Amino acid sequence: MKQLENLIDRIVERINVNLRDFKFDAGPFVRSLIPSNQLVKFYAFCGVTPQHPFHFQFIRSNLAGSYFLGRCTVDHAVLYKSDIRGDELKAKGDRFQFQGSEIPVYEDEIIRIKDAYLIKTLVHCYSHDPEVLEEFLIQNTASMHYANIHGSPVEGCFIGPFATVDLTTLHDSVIGAFSYVQVGELSHQYIEPGTIWVKAGDVFDFRYSYSKKVLKKYIFIESDIPPRGIFIDFIRNRKTDFQKIFDVVNLTAPVAVPHGASLNRYALVKGESHISENVLVAQRAYLENAWLGKGANAQENCYIINSRLEGNNVTAHGGKIIHANLGKNVFVGFNSFLRGTADLPLEIGERSIIMPHTIIDLNEPLKIPAEHVVWGYIRNAKDLETHTISIKKLSKVKKELALGAMKFQGSGSEFVKGFKHRIEHILEANGAFFDGKQNRGHAQKGQDVSFNIIHPYHEGQKKGVYPTIDIRS
Amino acid sequence: MKQLENLIDRIVERINVNLRDFKFDAGPFVRSLIPSNQLVKFYAFCGVTPQHPFHFQFIRSNLAGSYFLGRCTVDHAVLYKSDIRGDELKAKGDRFQFQGSEIPVYEDEIIRIKDAYLIKTLVHCYSHDPEVLEEFLIQNTASMHYANIHGSPVEGCFIGPFATVDLTTLHDSVIGAFSYVQVGELSHQYIEPGTIWVKAGDVFDFRYSYSKKVLKKYIFIESDIPPRGIFIDFIRNRKTDFQKIFDVVNLTAPVAVPHGASLNRYALVKGESHISENVLVAQRAYLENAWLGKGANAQENCYIINSRLEGNNVTAHGGKIIHANLGKNVFVGFNSFLRGTADLPLEIGERSIIMPHTIIDLNEPLKIPAEHVVWGYIRNAKDLETHTISIKKLSKVKKELALGAMKFQGSGSEFVKGFKHRIEHILEANGAFFDGKQNRGHAQKGQDVSFNIIHPYHEGQKKGVYPTIDIRS
Repeated sequence: MKQLENLIDRIVERINVNLRDFKFDAGPFVRSLIPSNQLVKFYAFCGVTPQHPFHFQFIRSNLAGSYFLGRCTVDHAVLYKSDIRGDELKAKGDRFQFQGSEIPVYEDEIIRIKDAYLIKTLVHCYSHDPEVLEEFLIQNTASMHYANIHGSPVEGCFIGPFATVDLTTLHDSVIGAFSYVQVGELSHQYIEPGTIWVKAGDVFDFRYSYSKKVLKKYIFIESDIPPRGIFIDFIRNRKTDFQKIFDVVNLTAPVAVPHGASLNRYALVKGESHISENVLVAQRAYLENAWLGKGANAQENCYIINSRLEGNNVTAHGGKIIHANLGKNVFVGFNSFLRGTADLPLEIGERSIIMPHTIIDLNEPLKIPAEHVVWGYIRNAKDLETHTISIKKLSKVKKELALGAMKFQGSGSEFVKGFKHRIEHILEANGAFFDGKQNRGHAQKGQDVSFNIIHPYHEGQKKGVYPTIDIRS
Repeated sequence: MKQLENLIDRIVERINVNLRDFKFDAGPFVRSLIPSNQLVKFYAFCGVTPQHPFHFQFIRSNLAGSYFLGRCTVDHAVLYKSDIRGDELKAKGDRFQFQGSEIPVYEDEIIRIKDAYLIKTLVHCYSHDPEVLEEFLIQNTASMHYANIHGSPVEGCFIGPFATVDLTTLHDSVIGAFSYVQVGELSHQYIEPGTIWVKAGDVFDFRYSYSKKVLKKYIFIESDIPPRGIFIDFIRNRKTDFQKIFDVVNLTAPVAVPHGASLNRYALVKGESHISENVLVAQRAYLENAWLGKGANAQENCYIINSRLEGNNVTAHGGKIIHANLGKNVFVGFNSFLRGTADLPLEIGERSIIMPHTIIDLNEPLKIPAEHVVWGYIRNAKDLETHTISIKKLSKVKKELALGAMKFQGSGSEFVKGFKHRIEHILEANGAFFDGKQNRGHAQKGQDVSFNIIHPYHEGQKKGVYPTIDIRS
């Protein structure tokens, strides 16, 4: 086990030197959150498919329970049950669009993770940083439970549990628990837990902060102690369901999967669930009595329970939807937690946008009208009043808007346009618009993936470390 | 599937050009014995352990269901459910003993398999060819069901089902079904099915041939038709037992494994079986109501059923022992088939040597005395008379001996000495003499192996072909 201990020491040192501004010590998080026997126990798996190129390189790392797709190099890192999804990386010859200009891509892009410790983190998409197009780098970084690193190169950072860094280049910063940042670039910043921040240069700036009291109920982390709260309990209660799908090597689909749809073999399906055409269900998605209409997608770590989604719905990475009916084209952002009950159901009208990291946890039945933007913490109709605005109204905002704890500055129409454009892109990329021939996306390309299963050394000095591996198409 | 078809064509061409002397066509064997969907269905697995160095390189090959340990390169080959065991390869700095002199080994040895099609074949040990010490090469070769390639570099050959090539360098030759050759070197030869041939230069020469009629009952192959006979039926009847151990990723031992013993996670254990200290049970060994005494080993593809082995027994690759009691230090050679029944049991006295490829298939109870050498086809005491000789008597043979269908020439004492020496070496290598500290062998080193599981492409042009893989310690 000596090598694994040395590796963890090395990672901690590097994170700490990057975060010296804040006198931040990653040690207590990294050293005691995951007992080292857990790091030995799980296998990692890499998807092999003819639909996209792959190249996996693992060097002196621990990869316990992690999932890999695409092109990625992991070097001196510990990835615990993380999802590294490199199926949207840029390819040689692509032209990257940036602020009206086009930059050529000279090599196939890879995800490179070096000197990093990621716990149950999703790394996905491709680097949105125009400065280095060929490498999506995560280095000298620790990232906690169910964080998302999405199109965001990250160097020298600590990312709290359920935090999301989205299309943002991050240097030497701390992102608090359940914070969401989509701000382009961030350097030497300490983002308080529960901050929702979307900013596009000087075009617009959206901010919302959860109250400490509310946040503590849902997700809370201290050094040395594993994170606690409703989010953690919710996931822990469903943990054993997943176990059986990891025990077997091959699994037959537990539900009918129509043409053009795909159900990842590491997704979980329970109860009376239904998958329509062009649906994508990613690995570690959880469906229980879930009805998914045509073109809906259920991304990694999302939970859809006793709910009906009418079609072309996006349930982003980590989104949770319980006892809810969602109209067509409803978007549910990263790590949102929408919880109705059988008696207190949630309804969301079509084309509404649930912002990333929204918590709707009902104490009365609730209907959200169509074409609204929703954010923050909502328990009932009264809360909703200060946490929603119609898309139409928002589009008219020219300078600023304050509503409850939310502050918006800049162009509402640009904000709406940006969001709509992105939702359309997500649906397209995931294969929602596949017509049997054209518009293939992940739902179609994700069929017939086979998975290579890799284990660490089980004994000796190298216990917990994986052999050096190179697998390529 | 196009790539896989091209690969098979390529292999056939190369074998045929090597065997043009015999106008041999490997095509019908290679093309129709294994339906191509079988080649897509199974995963391959490679053992990762700190106990010995490993390096797996797989290039444009199909590896369906194959097992790898140690250092091996597989390049443009089809290995169907084969066992490639490289845990006895020579290491850089070793000195190879050959006819009284020592040859230094300059590099770590690898098994290299190129342009070959092996079906359920065991490749094991290290090259005994003194000419190339660093590479154990198998090239331009087809090898059928349950053949053994043991320390034998093979080029341009066809090896029939249940045949064994042992410590023999083989060029451009055909080895018939169930033949056993251990003759040092062989070139451009056609060995008739059922030939047992052990030769050491001009020191001794042992030959026995099965009658065609007997052989046909046990194992028979024609081109285009899968092999048939009692051997095949025997294995097929136990095939489904194995399925469950391949379905799960990790398996806990179904029986107590004492200190110093090892039970491979891909071995099958049924009924009231017992494993004593220093026992080695290899992958794809089958134990059913098997009592294994201290230091006994059960090698790949062996079956030990309703039998008791007192200790320090060798059951070589493919050996089958049913309703038998074996005294201490009884040796059962490659692919031997010893079948008693509950009413007609077999007993073998201690230190007796059952030659490779012996068939004892009883129609009356039988006791084989201690310290005897046994060969050929035996159904009862009468048959035994012409198929055994005491070690003592054999040691006295100076020139020649004919007994039944067996012909021996040369020095009986050298033959006995060679055999005894080898048995001692096998026990030692397998860890039978481990005292808690010294004399570690495979039984000790084979503990705590973890297995990487690799799959081929499941769709597209490359369907059935494995990605390019490099895994090393």
